[in-house]
Amino acid sequence: MDKLIINVAVCGSAPTREQNPAIPHSPEEIAQEALRAWRAGASVVHIHVRDPQSGSPAFERELFAEALERIRAESDMLVNLTTSGFNIQAEDPDEERMLPISLKPDLCSLDVGSLNFRGRVFINPTEWVDKAARRMQENGVKPEIEVFELGHLRQALDMVQRGLVNEPPYFQFCLGIPWGAPADLDTLMAFRRQLNIDCPWSVLGVGARQLPITTHAILMGGHVRVGFEDNLYLSRGVLADSNARFVERTVELAKILQREVATCDDARQILGIKPKA
Amino acid sequence: MDKLIINVAVCGSAPTREQNPAIPHSPEEIAQEALRAWRAGASVVHIHVRDPQSGSPAFERELFAEALERIRAESDMLVNLTTSGFNIQAEDPDEERMLPISLKPDLCSLDVGSLNFRGRVFINPTEWVDKAARRMQENGVKPEIEVFELGHLRQALDMVQRGLVNEPPYFQFCLGIPWGAPADLDTLMAFRRQLNIDCPWSVLGVGARQLPITTHAILMGGHVRVGFEDNLYLSRGVLADSNARFVERTVELAKILQREVATCDDARQILGIKPKA
Amino acid sequence: MDKLIINVAVCGSAPTREQNPAIPHSPEEIAQEALRAWRAGASVVHIHVRDPQSGSPAFERELFAEALERIRAESDMLVNLTTSGFNIQAEDPDEERMLPISLKPDLCSLDVGSLNFRGRVFINPTEWVDKAARRMQENGVKPEIEVFELGHLRQALDMVQRGLVNEPPYFQFCLGIPWGAPADLDTLMAFRRQLNIDCPWSVLGVGARQLPITTHAILMGGHVRVGFEDNLYLSRGVLADSNARFVERTVELAKILQREVATCDDARQILGIKPKA
Amino acid sequence: MDKLIINVAVCGSAPTREQNPAIPHSPEEIAQEALRAWRAGASVVHIHVRDPQSGSPAFERELFAEALERIRAESDMLVNLTTSGFNIQAEDPDEERMLPISLKPDLCSLDVGSLNFRGRVFINPTEWVDKAARRMQENGVKPEIEVFELGHLRQALDMVQRGLVNEPPYFQFCLGIPWGAPADLDTLMAFRRQLNIDCPWSVLGVGARQLPITTHAILMGGHVRVGFEDNLYLSRGVLADSNARFVERTVELAKILQREVATCDDARQILGIKPKA
Repeated sequence: MDKLIINVAVCGSAPTREQNPAIPHSPEEIAQEALRAWRAGASVVHIHVRDPQSGSPAFERELFAEALERIRAESDMLVNLTTSGFNIQAEDPDEERMLPISLKPDLCSLDVGSLNFRGRVFINPTEWVDKAARRMQENGVKPEIEVFELGHLRQALDMVQRGLVNEPPYFQFCLGIPWGAPADLDTLMAFRRQLNIDCPWSVLGVGARQLPITTHAILMGGHVRVGFEDNLYLSRGVLADSNARFVERTVELAKILQREVATCDDARQILGIKPKA
Repeated sequence: MDKLIINVAVCGSAPTREQNPAIPHSPEEIAQEALRAWRAGASVVHIHVRDPQSGSPAFERELFAEALERIRAESDMLVNLTTSGFNIQAEDPDEERMLPISLKPDLCSLDVGSLNFRGRVFINPTEWVDKAARRMQENGVKPEIEVFELGHLRQALDMVQRGLVNEPPYFQFCLGIPWGAPADLDTLMAFRRQLNIDCPWSVLGVGARQLPITTHAILMGGHVRVGFEDNLYLSRGVLADSNARFVERTVELAKILQREVATCDDARQILGIKPKA
Repeated sequence: MDKLIINVAVCGSAPTREQNPAIPHSPEEIAQEALRAWRAGASVVHIHVRDPQSGSPAFERELFAEALERIRAESDMLVNLTTSGFNIQAEDPDEERMLPISLKPDLCSLDVGSLNFRGRVFINPTEWVDKAARRMQENGVKPEIEVFELGHLRQALDMVQRGLVNEPPYFQFCLGIPWGAPADLDTLMAFRRQLNIDCPWSVLGVGARQLPITTHAILMGGHVRVGFEDNLYLSRGVLADSNARFVERTVELAKILQREVATCDDARQILGIKPKA
Repeated sequence: MDKLIINVAVCGSAPTREQNPAIPHSPEEIAQEALRAWRAGASVVHIHVRDPQSGSPAFERELFAEALERIRAESDMLVNLTTSGFNIQAEDPDEERMLPISLKPDLCSLDVGSLNFRGRVFINPTEWVDKAARRMQENGVKPEIEVFELGHLRQALDMVQRGLVNEPPYFQFCLGIPWGAPADLDTLMAFRRQLNIDCPWSVLGVGARQLPITTHAILMGGHVRVGFEDNLYLSRGVLADSNARFVERTVELAKILQREVATCDDARQILGIKPKA
């Protein structure tokens, strides 16, 4: 069984300081949260950016760049920038969404399917997805392929066959979003079965499902994602004061369950990303 | 086990006469295909309309109304009008999509989720879906809840809990569309498990998967949908010359597998639709 | 998908003429039933013998030999003699059970596990099973590995790894016996998943489960066993007057479901049995 | 979700001091191990007895009685005496196997099916199983129904329907024994699905599978069994010096996974056993 890659999604675009005051806003705060999580054992950080003042979702090149640089300056953590592009107000939003790729992070998320996502429709047309995948290939950026449904996985496997993703593909099973596939064990196993190739996969579960579904994954040989983007509470009524709390708990679980936690170097090897210079 | 409801989807909006010359275009042709299928054993017909001349997808009130009337004039078949609304060019497309409800057919299809659907994105925002469900309730029209993914089913079960669908809800598991959930047995069982309430469900499978997946469903107590909207071939290279061919084969299978085929009255009872006056 | 091997188990040891007057007793009657099934499309016959007068279970060399010869004289059907050995009254019952192997039929059944089997305990100690497997190897007889439980399958896969079974192993999933694993779809899929190697497998289901479970298997790429040993009725209250009736129905199903039925030559090739001289 | 019952099986009949020097032999040693496990958080102890000198498997009334009394004298732990009866040398072994029931422990194990079990055949004819179940009912002893296969579970559910087991039945899924069903997640879910009634169930996994399969069960709402009978090692090459080590680890896991551990009173309530006087 591969060593365990702990992905941490430190802020996302949805959670607010009203919900949890520890949500980072500025690139500096985001980097600090990433580095705390890294010290606790996370090897990959998934990043959305926010307006430093208001905390509302943003998609500015400088914000992404600053967060990336700050993290790289102090760690060997793998950085995964989102291309979800919610809230983009741009002339060419399709092109704008690919902006983070040009910063050449280690990874970029790639949402391959469309779905009703909380209050909105998350639209990812196949043409755009193919184009973004090619852009990542050209820039040496590894896609973290986010799939919320069995059909997304099917579409992604077709992309792999069409050569749009370098080996090995890396999947994130995103479970429990309203209204994506639920974060239950039956669904995780259905995804696992449909993933009929040998490659790394990770799972995230929303809210209270984060803990059980990632624990199942640790035992099944999968990797995990934790953090504020998916979950704000350590337990009922107990807010986490840092993303690091989720990472610490995952490390503790991995230790008891006898699965070694991947270093950043291990994670690069598992994901087929060339070592940091 | 309930008697078997055979749904027939006689034309859809995608298949062309280039692909199969038996595709009906005009309301009269559509009604003729419905009635052929009814004589063969189908109890529910799912209807899209086309431009009578060109055969391109249409969404005109008169076309729906004519098809409905022609079928009702000669049969007790349950009529299910689509609300998918592809190709609508209207000032208020959301309202326009609900037009078929006002004709008070027995059922209307209700697509609850969004997904990449062949070359386009099939967008069904939750607000619209809720609104369409309420409109159906107000008009005494039964929704045939189309779910292409586990998350769609989850969303629909939430709607049932919120009282937006009268008992019993009726589900159509739409499997095998690129890029929805695949039409394989594992997926059918995953859907079946997630449907944790006792209610009628049906399955459709695209192309060559129509035959095996509907056969599994016949054995599992589900209902089935066949017809040109999903499949044009009886077997490799052999085009069906009428939707009735698929219905005949399903009836033959049901007979061998000892599952009684529902009459239109049976179907009304199973679906909780009041008897035809 | 391989062509479909239809196995027919023409009498077993349990069913009586009180239950169904068409149960064959003498080797001649058994051979006649086998040949009727062969003409209908069965390629493999599974044989138990009976006392020709009383019909009670027997295990005499002459009875096996006569049935085998009669079938071979008139057909190219593959013959599978049981080694279950119920009711053996012998000084060395373990050796006696292997007697049918010495007749060099095409196959012999090999029950690898122990279980409560209807009113008795069916005892198959691992030592005996290993010994019987080796004896089959030495005699050029293919084992039809009968597994009634997941643990039996596990034991059998261990035997395959230890080289006690020539490639490809051939499994019979025996479902629905009281008290073996049930003949439902969940169980069939659990067996199918645990069979993690590429090899032919067949399924039998007891009583009314014969028809649905074998139909699922036809669609899943498995082979099937039908016949009086497992089921006496064509439908509720309707006794079959010959094993051929079950075979005819299976052939009809296979035709509709577009799976070609294996000839005896096809079956030999699929099972890795050398062609009949 | 019910609180978690931790069952501990402190010695079994198979493991030897050559394998692990901490294996208890005498009733006093067995009671000491039970009490250590109880202090660590176990609420039920499953007991086999050994010859105090040689450590070989025994089945003497005095040995069971002494262990039972010693545990009861110092704790409120629930005691579960085996009726597996391996190695019984008695005139009436069937009656002898039921001897522990007469001591009126809280529970007795009840093995309902037969199977190849390590080097021997574990024979449990249905007549004996029914008789033992009735004996337990008469003596107010709760059966812990041990099932090693799907068919055993099926047989047990039939017994429940026939009224041979008081509500709620309590199942132990015994996974990973050669040659019972394997201790993998697919199998656990197959058992879970087939258990179509609402009642407490526990799982044990042999050897290195103990840790992952019991962790899955903690998350799934099941109870767990740990201890020397199933597993001697804490991790590869690291022997446990007491059964309490496994219990401590389970308690630690339950804490992280936010499942409360059942006290002995909780366990009595969950299992429908009347409170200790």
